[in-house]
Amino acid sequence: MKVTIKDIANATGLSLTTVSLVLNNRPCRVTSENREKILNTARQLGYQSNVAAKSLRTGKSYSLGLIVPDIRNDFYSTLAKGMEDTCQQSGWSLVLCCSNNNPQRELHYVHSLQAKSIDGICIVATSGSSGTEAFIHNRQVMIDNHIPVVQLDLTGYKEGVNAVICDHEKGGYFATDYLLSLGHRSIAFVTGPLSLEGSASRLKGCRAALANYNYPFNESLLIQGDYSYESGIKAVDTLINQSFTAVFAFNDLMAYGVYHGLNHYHLSVPDDVSVIGYDDHFFSSIITPGLTTVHQPFYEMGQKAAALLIDKTVNHDDGSVIETLDTKLVIRSSVKSLV
Amino acid sequence: MKVTIKDIANATGLSLTTVSLVLNNRPCRVTSENREKILNTARQLGYQSNVAAKSLRTGKSYSLGLIVPDIRNDFYSTLAKGMEDTCQQSGWSLVLCCSNNNPQRELHYVHSLQAKSIDGICIVATSGSSGTEAFIHNRQVMIDNHIPVVQLDLTGYKEGVNAVICDHEKGGYFATDYLLSLGHRSIAFVTGPLSLEGSASRLKGCRAALANYNYPFNESLLIQGDYSYESGIKAVDTLINQSFTAVFAFNDLMAYGVYHGLNHYHLSVPDDVSVIGYDDHFFSSIITPGLTTVHQPFYEMGQKAAALLIDKTVNHDDGSVIETLDTKLVIRSSVKSLV
Repeated sequence: MKVTIKDIANATGLSLTTVSLVLNNRPCRVTSENREKILNTARQLGYQSNVAAKSLRTGKSYSLGLIVPDIRNDFYSTLAKGMEDTCQQSGWSLVLCCSNNNPQRELHYVHSLQAKSIDGICIVATSGSSGTEAFIHNRQVMIDNHIPVVQLDLTGYKEGVNAVICDHEKGGYFATDYLLSLGHRSIAFVTGPLSLEGSASRLKGCRAALANYNYPFNESLLIQGDYSYESGIKAVDTLINQSFTAVFAFNDLMAYGVYHGLNHYHLSVPDDVSVIGYDDHFFSSIITPGLTTVHQPFYEMGQKAAALLIDKTVNHDDGSVIETLDTKLVIRSSVKSLV
Repeated sequence: MKVTIKDIANATGLSLTTVSLVLNNRPCRVTSENREKILNTARQLGYQSNVAAKSLRTGKSYSLGLIVPDIRNDFYSTLAKGMEDTCQQSGWSLVLCCSNNNPQRELHYVHSLQAKSIDGICIVATSGSSGTEAFIHNRQVMIDNHIPVVQLDLTGYKEGVNAVICDHEKGGYFATDYLLSLGHRSIAFVTGPLSLEGSASRLKGCRAALANYNYPFNESLLIQGDYSYESGIKAVDTLINQSFTAVFAFNDLMAYGVYHGLNHYHLSVPDDVSVIGYDDHFFSSIITPGLTTVHQPFYEMGQKAAALLIDKTVNHDDGSVIETLDTKLVIRSSVKSLV
């Protein structure tokens, strides 16, 4: 037999209205003693609020959607953990969607999440050449349908959506400044695709740090990678006949590739070449030598994104917000001082 | 204005019944031409089925829940990817829950997923000393509430639930047999907690392989770890004054710890000591030397779990199923032949 609020009212001797308000977590005048009594009785009798009925009545599902390219990527799983923790604390659910970097699949999710009355969507852009146009289209679909959205980068940013981002310019600046402060002058930069906002911003920070030392940017030491391990290996092949004392890889995965590439040419990290990464992947503390890297606050970004969406839903807030979080340099053993 | 099936019937000139059956993906006599016409018109007009209403009517949410200890763990994110891909193909959603290895939080999810009329739950046991008892209790709650469940291991297995598992006994056997075939006789085993089914099964396989070579099991080379990187490092500290030519770590993370520990004692892998892991974590192909390991089919386990739950929901099947998947040995560069 399904337990109803009537059963709980009977068992506690309190009014239907009071029981309903307490169980739906709505403001009401009730002593904390009676509130406890209602919640305990509900638990003992095995009361379950019917979320489907409530959802139909309120138009809310108390759920957020997360669309990421691939949950197996450490970045996205840490992000998901941050969102999920915040959802759980508020009694909300998180629906996980993996776009596989396919804008069509992303659009499919936008529609299906909407059909399920999801209250808000946090989304990480699909990358690739066709990504940006489709991205703007998909964002427009969400704006047109009044679905609160938080995007986790500014690539293809569409006004009217919210964003939680990292200050990558500062991140690029800090890493380069650190190398310069230790006497490195010939620094190779292995970037991600420069069409992506995150890569372009890091590079801007690198250039600013060099300019601050009145040191020219050597374009021949700029290698555009694609954020993959393999592109880190390839970058070393391209660089090997040039002179450089340090490599700044724009993500940790490429830094691991750089380690591998240098090792292939019998160059030791950090004795022959210093390496610095970006992300602070879990493995960067395990790999030998430990990778000095720029920590991205993925977990906190997930928390912020969820809190922002819940807040916008609860308060019917249509304004658009951009929150910027700071990165920080994590110093391990992959950079040698030349001074 | 919300688009209804009436609008689509008017636009296509087809009956309300036909439109409804096609849009709800129910069997009906309709030409493929008309089916296409209905679907295209629905898409053009921006029709969205109201899942909340449908959910209330059918008692189904077309959603599965996944409860894992921590999505940041590579195992669980790969599992989630497999489940999500299968859900997506069937038009279902996946709700992600992280128990943080806390049985109380796990129980909270069981209740909240039930309140949201979730159709089935895939669950990975919380570990730790108090895990098992709470685990059995939480499984019973799901059985009592007729929620189809798949668990991803057999620890604290409760009859009436389904399971998708790996044949860890075979996995343990293959790894040990491989070391024996290359002439290793003094093999150290760094296990997980032996209270967990997965650890106990691997060890059973190890013993069987040794027995097959008529070689005794040296209990002093058995170190019980806890699956953490640190416990791999500690295991080397415990082993260092004994004689051994190979270490079989029961997961890759502990194998990385063993690498670190051996390195600390200036022992080289595989020249001084061979190492074999278990999982086939992405990083095992990146670490130097590449780790020979037993591959666990996490992605396929996720796919199977989702397919099983969807099938059970659609076919109202109450029977309990245990599916066993095979592991395989992935040979890289961390084991040296002594023959």
